[in-house]
Amino acid sequence: MSITATSVYLAQRPEGLPDESTWEIRQHELPTELNESEILVKVNYLSLDPAMRGWLNDVRSYVPPVQIGEIMRALGTGEVLESNTPNFSPGDRVQGLFGVTDYAISDGRGVTGIDLDVAAEPTWLGALGMPGMTGYFGLLDVGELQDGDTVLISAAAGAVGSVAGQLAKARGCRVIGIAGGEEKCAWLTEIGFDEAINYKNEKVLSRLREVAPDGINVFFDNVGGTILDAGLANLARGARVVICGAISTYNDPTLAPGPSRYMSLLVFRARMQGFVVFDYRDRYPEAVEAIAAHISNGSLVARETVVGGGVRGFPEALLGLFQGVNTGKLVLEI
Amino acid sequence: MSITATSVYLAQRPEGLPDESTWEIRQHELPTELNESEILVKVNYLSLDPAMRGWLNDVRSYVPPVQIGEIMRALGTGEVLESNTPNFSPGDRVQGLFGVTDYAISDGRGVTGIDLDVAAEPTWLGALGMPGMTGYFGLLDVGELQDGDTVLISAAAGAVGSVAGQLAKARGCRVIGIAGGEEKCAWLTEIGFDEAINYKNEKVLSRLREVAPDGINVFFDNVGGTILDAGLANLARGARVVICGAISTYNDPTLAPGPSRYMSLLVFRARMQGFVVFDYRDRYPEAVEAIAAHISNGSLVARETVVGGGVRGFPEALLGLFQGVNTGKLVLEI
Repeated sequence: MSITATSVYLAQRPEGLPDESTWEIRQHELPTELNESEILVKVNYLSLDPAMRGWLNDVRSYVPPVQIGEIMRALGTGEVLESNTPNFSPGDRVQGLFGVTDYAISDGRGVTGIDLDVAAEPTWLGALGMPGMTGYFGLLDVGELQDGDTVLISAAAGAVGSVAGQLAKARGCRVIGIAGGEEKCAWLTEIGFDEAINYKNEKVLSRLREVAPDGINVFFDNVGGTILDAGLANLARGARVVICGAISTYNDPTLAPGPSRYMSLLVFRARMQGFVVFDYRDRYPEAVEAIAAHISNGSLVARETVVGGGVRGFPEALLGLFQGVNTGKLVLEI
Repeated sequence: MSITATSVYLAQRPEGLPDESTWEIRQHELPTELNESEILVKVNYLSLDPAMRGWLNDVRSYVPPVQIGEIMRALGTGEVLESNTPNFSPGDRVQGLFGVTDYAISDGRGVTGIDLDVAAEPTWLGALGMPGMTGYFGLLDVGELQDGDTVLISAAAGAVGSVAGQLAKARGCRVIGIAGGEEKCAWLTEIGFDEAINYKNEKVLSRLREVAPDGINVFFDNVGGTILDAGLANLARGARVVICGAISTYNDPTLAPGPSRYMSLLVFRARMQGFVVFDYRDRYPEAVEAIAAHISNGSLVARETVVGGGVRGFPEALLGLFQGVNTGKLVLEI
């Protein structure tokens, strides 16, 4: 098949927020023949992730940075058009790291089939995708959630936070969410959060003291900065602080200050622990099964904010993530 | 017995370093009769601890602050002069929270006997006292030391650090110490540390990269600030960062910035955990026995810096701690 793909390439590493100089968007011909084990995929949806900002920095991290001149790394879902492996057949719906492109040839590594009877494609990038896995293993394994815990989630209306919070609720825990804006907070209450704090017009530190007078047992932090500090100041003894992300600092061109209140870890005999969801790869099926069951019995609402614009809409859609335009998972429709 | 004691009282909470306005030193008569279960102790040595600075702040912490008008809290060793309890007899040597005073009446709570055949009194405030317990449980329990670990200790020539480092060496681990000054570093090498970094004239971050190219598995931090950050930047995967103290920040009248590199916890799947040694109270005998055995077979050198001056020398002696005058445990002779 002769295919002209349109892809977004990394042209230049950004300082601060990515802008038009960061990207080059161009068409290119895909090879007409697949090699052994390859598949040709038509991409339908792309995942927009806070982690993408980190992948643009030329520093040692949990994955290599995207190189200048490479297609921007992205998870996506789509349809197999051609296959040179017995693992996939044309017509299969799949999920994988296809990059910011409308057509991709993949060697099949990390590609998994998705079942549209369970949920639509965008959900496989959200609650049933990497964000869902992140919420599940972060809360249960890293956070060691216990019955009766008071749980705090920052960026609670986001893709990861909304899953983590609802899983904690399903366990019967008291759950407090922090989000930006009345609308997001109203949604959190609607899906069962006990408290929703709007950081844009409430004082998070003192509000936490009110709503969690006995302190927080598990703090699942996606944000960093002053919100991390506010949580640290309100821990319960033996608390677990799960370091999932720090979206408030990702576009800071300097090294942002760390949590001033980290000595709370000593006062409260608490721990702060980081993780990378890829380490749980072998256990994804367990999480997918659990989350799918929660979706199907109504105890977990999977929500996505789908934006249009196709491949060429990627630069703007990515900025939307840092402006907090999304409730639930932010997905770009191709 | 009619006793006139001299004691140091907290007169005013300091901002920054304590000064002469912080303390009031005066004589007072002790009651002539002991109540049920009380003992009268002649204090011989007082422990000078970085934690003392925290006890002066009127904030919620792991122990209540010292109140204005109270005798300053301090651990000490001494001799029982009179006893109204079968637990102690006149002539017994004891250790306890007697306060900054030369004579104390104690209700016996937290007072334990010490054996001068095992070690002299100052050692019972150092390697066999709270600092030793702190090094032992911090390294083994909180740090979960494993065979083959590379261990980093900050304030390594101090009371806690020197015990923690030597325990790690005794376990066969590779141990790197950070200390201030050539003399302290020379001593660290003498007692078996594999590397000693003088933070006063070496770049800690880049030196760590050289001496621990595969990263640090356990980082026992007593210091905070830029040294904590340098360690965080050089962790190994799955590292444990033990938060024991933050002496670099204790006299900062504002809330000092936290560790900018805390996101290393995510990159390295590491954890940072605080603890308070008092929680291990029931297991002190285990640690005393282990450390005493190491002292006796020569695998652990217990060192103290004893300063004179008696009770009235306390204010100056305490400042010496923050200037780093001590190698090993800083003790005030009464």
